[in-house]
Amino acid sequence: MADLIPAMEKALIDFSAGNVMQPVRSVITVNPPGGFFGMMPALTPNGLGIKIVTFYATNAKRGIPTHMATIFLVDPETGTPLAIMNGTLITEMRTAAVSAAATNLLASPDAKILAILGSGVQARSHIAALRLVRNFEEVRVWSRTPEHAERFATEVGAKAMSAEKAVRDADVVVTATNSKTPVLKGSWLKRGCHINAIGACRPDWRELDDKAMANVVFVDSREAALK
Amino acid sequence: MADLIPAMEKALIDFSAGNVMQPVRSVITVNPPGGFFGMMPALTPNGLGIKIVTFYATNAKRGIPTHMATIFLVDPETGTPLAIMNGTLITEMRTAAVSAAATNLLASPDAKILAILGSGVQARSHIAALRLVRNFEEVRVWSRTPEHAERFATEVGAKAMSAEKAVRDADVVVTATNSKTPVLKGSWLKRGCHINAIGACRPDWRELDDKAMANVVFVDSREAALK
Repeated sequence: MADLIPAMEKALIDFSAGNVMQPVRSVITVNPPGGFFGMMPALTPNGLGIKIVTFYATNAKRGIPTHMATIFLVDPETGTPLAIMNGTLITEMRTAAVSAAATNLLASPDAKILAILGSGVQARSHIAALRLVRNFEEVRVWSRTPEHAERFATEVGAKAMSAEKAVRDADVVVTATNSKTPVLKGSWLKRGCHINAIGACRPDWRELDDKAMANVVFVDSREAALK
Repeated sequence: MADLIPAMEKALIDFSAGNVMQPVRSVITVNPPGGFFGMMPALTPNGLGIKIVTFYATNAKRGIPTHMATIFLVDPETGTPLAIMNGTLITEMRTAAVSAAATNLLASPDAKILAILGSGVQARSHIAALRLVRNFEEVRVWSRTPEHAERFATEVGAKAMSAEKAVRDADVVVTATNSKTPVLKGSWLKRGCHINAIGACRPDWRELDDKAMANVVFVDSREAALK
């Protein structure tokens, strides 16, 4: 993770500088059961390939991961297949590393309190990544299911509490839920707080209310954020 | 191949009936060397997945295939990866099977002369597939490189000749070239001739001249054909 954060910072710079061809991901919706099959291709000066991500919320009931990812790389010189990789762990780490790169640049240098809304794999990887860019004295966790929050907090050395309590006075907040309706209210936010909003990946989902969104917003891709 | 032709006929019916979700393939162009990375996802009542096809004309000089394909399937119920397959042979067979299904329905029932423009893998698979739906007495072959045409003709029991000679009086014609400019002239065509035009896969490529295109045209996907 310590190597991945600067690599992701470089990737974001390359993308914003126009050195990467990365069409906005396309998604096939599978009904029933309400699953998503997402395709994320990219061409960089060093590589060419695609990540396929599936997201099935209904998998939670089956006891299998809701997100699964597979990465396929080819040689940009010849199109010859180079690698097919399980991309699930890479996705968990990459997403958190991007948040850490952003947090490093945008959050208060003396941030002390981290609040995580969510208790899934992204919550876990975000704690690991963000601890590398700030010295947090306190980590707070909320999850819709209180037992999940308690279990997760115990594992990572955090405190479980209500969303409002977790967010108030926090310097850095992560929203990493599958919520379709806001879980974070702008009225809770401390002045200067930095939020990494990870979860709402569909145009009709949201984690932040209007007041929270009325603050300064940074996005990785303007084109993707507007879709 | 004998099983694949009716399967492809069913797939075309399902697609035209709206039972298949198949976004028009998207393509990343890789410059240099002028390669293409194409993505072809589909969701049917029975399956969900994507075929990745790379096309690098420059591979011919390297002695490796110009087209390579990989197929990735997931379980439509859960998004769990099911299979990753080399799709190169499947692509060769499937394309020819679709032409055979079309030829079976559209060509003269007593077609006797088959002309193939091109001498690559699609030329080969088309001869195998089309022989299953019509009893050809003569197979004619043209290729831009005469030695390729001769070698191929000897292999498949065909006669090599000029494109015009091959096409005149032919009942069924296949264009399976990588040409960017027309190789088939409408003025050569016998009345009632059926053409399978396979090769021109980019919007600015073409194998048929205007006069040939002025005949009745059938396409697998109107949306894709107009792009």
